[in-house]
Amino acid sequence: MAYEGQWQTEAVGRLGIRVPIVGAPMGGGPSTPALVAAVSEVGGLGSLAGGYLSPDRLRADIAAVRELTAEPFAVNLFVPTPVEPTGEAIEAAQRALEPYRRELELPSRPASTAGPWAEDFEAQLAVVIEERVPVTSFTFGLLPEAAVAALHDAGSLLVGTATTVDEARAVVASGADLVCAQGSEAGAHRGTFLGAAEQALVGTLALVPQVCDAVDVPVLAAGGIMDGRGVAAVLGLGAGAAVLGTAFLRCPEAGTSAPYRRALTAATETSTAVTTTVTGRMARGIENRLMRDLRDLDVPPYPVMHTLTSELRRRAAERDEPDLMSLWCGQGIRLGTDLPAGELVRRLADDAAATIARLTKAAGR
Amino acid sequence: MAYEGQWQTEAVGRLGIRVPIVGAPMGGGPSTPALVAAVSEVGGLGSLAGGYLSPDRLRADIAAVRELTAEPFAVNLFVPTPVEPTGEAIEAAQRALEPYRRELELPSRPASTAGPWAEDFEAQLAVVIEERVPVTSFTFGLLPEAAVAALHDAGSLLVGTATTVDEARAVVASGADLVCAQGSEAGAHRGTFLGAAEQALVGTLALVPQVCDAVDVPVLAAGGIMDGRGVAAVLGLGAGAAVLGTAFLRCPEAGTSAPYRRALTAATETSTAVTTTVTGRMARGIENRLMRDLRDLDVPPYPVMHTLTSELRRRAAERDEPDLMSLWCGQGIRLGTDLPAGELVRRLADDAAATIARLTKAAGR
Repeated sequence: MAYEGQWQTEAVGRLGIRVPIVGAPMGGGPSTPALVAAVSEVGGLGSLAGGYLSPDRLRADIAAVRELTAEPFAVNLFVPTPVEPTGEAIEAAQRALEPYRRELELPSRPASTAGPWAEDFEAQLAVVIEERVPVTSFTFGLLPEAAVAALHDAGSLLVGTATTVDEARAVVASGADLVCAQGSEAGAHRGTFLGAAEQALVGTLALVPQVCDAVDVPVLAAGGIMDGRGVAAVLGLGAGAAVLGTAFLRCPEAGTSAPYRRALTAATETSTAVTTTVTGRMARGIENRLMRDLRDLDVPPYPVMHTLTSELRRRAAERDEPDLMSLWCGQGIRLGTDLPAGELVRRLADDAAATIARLTKAAGR
Repeated sequence: MAYEGQWQTEAVGRLGIRVPIVGAPMGGGPSTPALVAAVSEVGGLGSLAGGYLSPDRLRADIAAVRELTAEPFAVNLFVPTPVEPTGEAIEAAQRALEPYRRELELPSRPASTAGPWAEDFEAQLAVVIEERVPVTSFTFGLLPEAAVAALHDAGSLLVGTATTVDEARAVVASGADLVCAQGSEAGAHRGTFLGAAEQALVGTLALVPQVCDAVDVPVLAAGGIMDGRGVAAVLGLGAGAAVLGTAFLRCPEAGTSAPYRRALTAATETSTAVTTTVTGRMARGIENRLMRDLRDLDVPPYPVMHTLTSELRRRAAERDEPDLMSLWCGQGIRLGTDLPAGELVRRLADDAAATIARLTKAAGR
């Protein structure tokens, strides 16, 4: 059942949606086609997490979304980071992971230790272009000029992720149509691609207006938004829509594992931390044994370390051992619900509208 | 000239003010009586930073505020942290500071190395009670029960600082009338008093609604708020007023030194970092040489290290050497202005109202 109203922001207009709510792409399971379609169907913008999907799986998931909704949706891609890890670095990381693999009864060496370290980006891109996906979002860097042109030719709007003002300017200069400003509260990987990730942990409340002032395209805001108050807040800051990930993690449509759901339900605003060693790229999640143990390890860069730990994190989920999983989530965690995604989107929009009505009274108008 | 309107939130009503704007107490110079009075006179709530003031100076500053305005204002006090540093710890810290003292042509040892490490809290408290200060805010912990009773008897409203939900609950349980939720964007010292400061770096956007849900008293929000968009945003999150520090640092009424002002003007959202070693307590400021050099030092706890570094930081300011000062400020820094404080408060209120009008249109109402 679609949301009845029609919100009016430039971003909402550009994206062709009805409510200023974007479901964040959550890789590794949570963002199923069912979740993406549920968010889009009611008037928001669902996002498939394409980064970890094989080109075939990506094509199949796009088709699955289209089976479920005729509304616009997004596919998120990871801009590849060229890496050439040394054999020694990989060997050292594997030695450090050995005890966990033993604990999880995995063979002592992962299947592949020579890469490839990521899915074929050019092939993923070809799928998104061929499928004429309505919105393509990207993170970890900038799309090559040719990709921007090809996606635009295919009718796709482009949304680039920025964690600083300089990154937002670079995203716009690269040809993106919108910028997603990712504040420090956000769960999972940081999009930082210019400068040190530690310096780019800027809170959403501080980041969004500074980004809005710096660019002339609509800005989406991500990080810590969990309910209608948060949606109204980021629209107040100047964003044209709110991007929510953690808020959707416990939806029945999400592919979130049972131990992950339990950990989310028990966590509080002080349960999360950022790690740089679990995957080689800074990410926020519930602090657990894996995160603590690996803290000071010298690890190969993303996506190498990501690939080296992914089998054991997946296995830990299967064996119901949350302490060795990656429990990515943001700082708004206490505000999570188990609502179905469509109902959550409607509630977010209704509560944001109620918040705005409350603000109007507060202003004495 | 007072602000014409009257905002309607419970916090505004309790505090007896007209606009939901609180000037944060900024110790070490910035929060002069002139700044405090300017914020209060126009309808906000100015805050004297009492923590570092001698009881006599505190009494004089309160009188100075009252010379300038009949409106309510706050005095902020630091809840004392009992410390018993060893002679070795002090000696080690002094050795580490020696090169900077030499560089600044200070004698090799500070005047006092045996304490007292802080002003006499009981005497400060007695002044605030005798002076029947309208609002008393406190940070770094909880006021003793007797102090709460005496301040309430003296007609003072109490505002306690919290950086987590647990702290907010403790603040309310201790008898405070309002809670100030301090998000991770905030400049200067973190108020954290339960658990590790590193775990309590929760972004304002995530922290405020979680605190609002947990307590039944009005909540003030601090951290990253610099303009009317930020004010509207935190009211949307459920706060009853916005607490701004960095936004007032460059006001002509602020006692901010010339090199500090220059550093603020040049800084961006990625210029700040948190340090725990400059004063022994976690604080956010523009990252400079002093912060970087001391990063991994093992230092005595606050307020001992604060006292050991304060002479050299003051001297650095006098000699126009910002790299050895403490340049406390928050992450909203690009949004700073040089406006007089009263004009800034009026603009904040007007812009917040304009933001709310824009939100009403965005909601399609």
